[in-house]
Amino acid sequence: MKKILLIGAGRSASTLIEYLLQKAAELNWHITIGELNPETAREKIGNSPYASALLFDATDEQVRSSAVENHDLIISMLPATMHVPVAKDCIRFKKHMVTASYVSDEMKLLDEAAKQAGITLLNEMGVDPGIDHMSAMKVLDELRAEGADIFHFETFTGGLPAPESDDNPWHYKFFWNPKNVVLAGQGSASKFLHEGRFKYIPYQRVFRRTERVNVPGFGEFEGYANRDSLKYREAYGLQHAKTIYRGTFRRPGYSRSWNILVQLGATDDSFTMEGSENMSNRDFINSFLYYHPTDSVETKVAQQFHLDLDSDEMMRLEWLGLFREDEKPGLKNATPAQMLLNILEKRWTPGPEDKDMIVMWHRFVYMLNGEKREKHSYLVTLGDNRIHSAMSKTVGLPTGIGAKLLLENHPGIFGVIIPVMPEIYLPVLNELEEFDIKTEERQIL
Amino acid sequence: MKKILLIGAGRSASTLIEYLLQKAAELNWHITIGELNPETAREKIGNSPYASALLFDATDEQVRSSAVENHDLIISMLPATMHVPVAKDCIRFKKHMVTASYVSDEMKLLDEAAKQAGITLLNEMGVDPGIDHMSAMKVLDELRAEGADIFHFETFTGGLPAPESDDNPWHYKFFWNPKNVVLAGQGSASKFLHEGRFKYIPYQRVFRRTERVNVPGFGEFEGYANRDSLKYREAYGLQHAKTIYRGTFRRPGYSRSWNILVQLGATDDSFTMEGSENMSNRDFINSFLYYHPTDSVETKVAQQFHLDLDSDEMMRLEWLGLFREDEKPGLKNATPAQMLLNILEKRWTPGPEDKDMIVMWHRFVYMLNGEKREKHSYLVTLGDNRIHSAMSKTVGLPTGIGAKLLLENHPGIFGVIIPVMPEIYLPVLNELEEFDIKTEERQIL
Repeated sequence: MKKILLIGAGRSASTLIEYLLQKAAELNWHITIGELNPETAREKIGNSPYASALLFDATDEQVRSSAVENHDLIISMLPATMHVPVAKDCIRFKKHMVTASYVSDEMKLLDEAAKQAGITLLNEMGVDPGIDHMSAMKVLDELRAEGADIFHFETFTGGLPAPESDDNPWHYKFFWNPKNVVLAGQGSASKFLHEGRFKYIPYQRVFRRTERVNVPGFGEFEGYANRDSLKYREAYGLQHAKTIYRGTFRRPGYSRSWNILVQLGATDDSFTMEGSENMSNRDFINSFLYYHPTDSVETKVAQQFHLDLDSDEMMRLEWLGLFREDEKPGLKNATPAQMLLNILEKRWTPGPEDKDMIVMWHRFVYMLNGEKREKHSYLVTLGDNRIHSAMSKTVGLPTGIGAKLLLENHPGIFGVIIPVMPEIYLPVLNELEEFDIKTEERQIL
Repeated sequence: MKKILLIGAGRSASTLIEYLLQKAAELNWHITIGELNPETAREKIGNSPYASALLFDATDEQVRSSAVENHDLIISMLPATMHVPVAKDCIRFKKHMVTASYVSDEMKLLDEAAKQAGITLLNEMGVDPGIDHMSAMKVLDELRAEGADIFHFETFTGGLPAPESDDNPWHYKFFWNPKNVVLAGQGSASKFLHEGRFKYIPYQRVFRRTERVNVPGFGEFEGYANRDSLKYREAYGLQHAKTIYRGTFRRPGYSRSWNILVQLGATDDSFTMEGSENMSNRDFINSFLYYHPTDSVETKVAQQFHLDLDSDEMMRLEWLGLFREDEKPGLKNATPAQMLLNILEKRWTPGPEDKDMIVMWHRFVYMLNGEKREKHSYLVTLGDNRIHSAMSKTVGLPTGIGAKLLLENHPGIFGVIIPVMPEIYLPVLNELEEFDIKTEERQIL
């Protein structure tokens, strides 16, 4: 009997746990779910005989290392910063590990030791990062096998309301981490490569430099640039490509309207506002506008951004309740970003019936036999409900399938890796199709 | 004989040294000028019998404390971060100290110890900060003595080319720290108080929210907001004022044009650019613009900011050489701000004949005997030449006069202070008038 230790069983782990329990029955596994609150784990286990709950505090070295020692494979769904101590235990006891998180610099440093130990620390096995790597690499490798010279690669992913739950003028709800949405684009300028030139977009322009994309069957999306489009240039073998762009999808109009909040300063997380606990939503917005004894807040916003009072942008701000005098976040010593988040959460938190959707789209332009060709590849996954959300499925399933691969058919690749090699992405993508998670392709040119 | 130790004798110290040498002759002082390179000090001393040069490394504890011990008063013109160890020595050996720098948090912590030691650490004795405090406090205290209730206070200072040296379309040259000019406004949002409301301006709006001011005899200026307008609210006794605004002067049109560089991302100092060593000025600007196979860089800038190709803004960018293909900063691993600084320094570095100008302007609005009144106070100082610049005079003279005050007529105020009390600002402002540094006042209402 093989033993898997799953650490961290938050909301997004539901699909993963179901997958693991089902495979446990088929393949004679035992699953231990380690949680700070084992009750959470027990709920998800139900009456499955293939799993047990464990009180698990990742910061308790003793508990952590003995749990790692007593299992054959570890899946860490802990917050990203907590993977490294677990990974070190995995090296010590020669156990494989799977995460859905970005490879941190500290994780990267463990590569040599993991190779020495003959184990695999398989990361970025979620959706973004995860399925994006796998679905892109499949096409890239196929094209290269045909002899194509790929000079242009674009990729976008977005977590959005499914069409039937798309019922507000922003076409957006908080299915993913709300704080990340408010802070999106902040920090260093976004960097990408366009026709052989490095391009930089500062925060104040990110939401004004969007690209429009049509995803067949799902209509129009707009994409804004991620911080570092060049992160996977080498991993994807695209060192010679002239254009590389990674971005995030929203529905058209979102970015233009969000940019108003950026320009006002309402997304700033670097200082606290005086008297924030007594501010109405309207006071909050007014604190970023020039003083005028009679002009309304609405008029000042419209004037500053050269908008019609009945423009889509103004309607979206209005819909968020940003001009309301009768509503207060009521937060003490809050930053603008915290105030805004509070206001947004009242409108963008999905209801119990709301369904989400993951949309992913890649564009490949290449030369083949002396001709310029273009191919698109896209994937749309709809959530069934709030538990079996698109997010839970697209994060949990690749993680679970990755774990099964390492346990049952280990591909013989060791060290700190991400799923860019066919030995990994092919079996994972194949099995994902059984769950109706599959890419479509279109030859454009 | 009283002994003064002056540490740091950079360019801006020329007027200060001349003042000290003259007073040394009159008042029987000896001046020691401590410099890392004593040759610099010797040049400034010339053949004065009242001064000597000292090899001085502020980081050498032994040298520093024995120098402090052997003098009666210390003037530190070192970089601001290096004042605190000197101040600690001053407390230990019970010596007064004068600086022209902002009071740092670390300096503030020395207040109690300085009071215990019965010494005065007199800071912010330059122009801004310095003369701005003194000239504002004089009017504030006079108005309050008349019974005025001051509810509105604005203050602006700028270091600009004197009218005869004002010969470029930006009406600006680097008489002050160039790097600070490029980074101006970055960091936390600018904060001020307007009609009882706290207002915040993020970096992306600072140069679009300017105020226009006419200074009699010198024409129009525009002011943008400093980071924290409320820093001196209590020190000035303005806790109940409804409007407090501190800003920086430029000539009209500067801010609008500078804002284009801000919006492009060209002032960003947080990341290094790929291949910066080979970039022409034109490549540099183009790296912030969308890719187009044929559109010119000029057209793309004009389009992005909705400018006519022959607008003042485009002419100013053109004048800076930002569109030149035949000029390269040639800097390796440079941030955008470093690239821009290099380009600006080629155009904005003052020539040997260039004269500078310090312009300061305060606005007071108040109720007196039931009526609303308004008064302006302003000060313009012109440089005589590059050595006796307006900056050197307005920084050096208040510092020197402050030192004389503490040595010869100590006002009996101890601790870490700034010149907001009449016992200090009155004698300093009085003596400044002998050097033609004086404020004018206008009663507007």
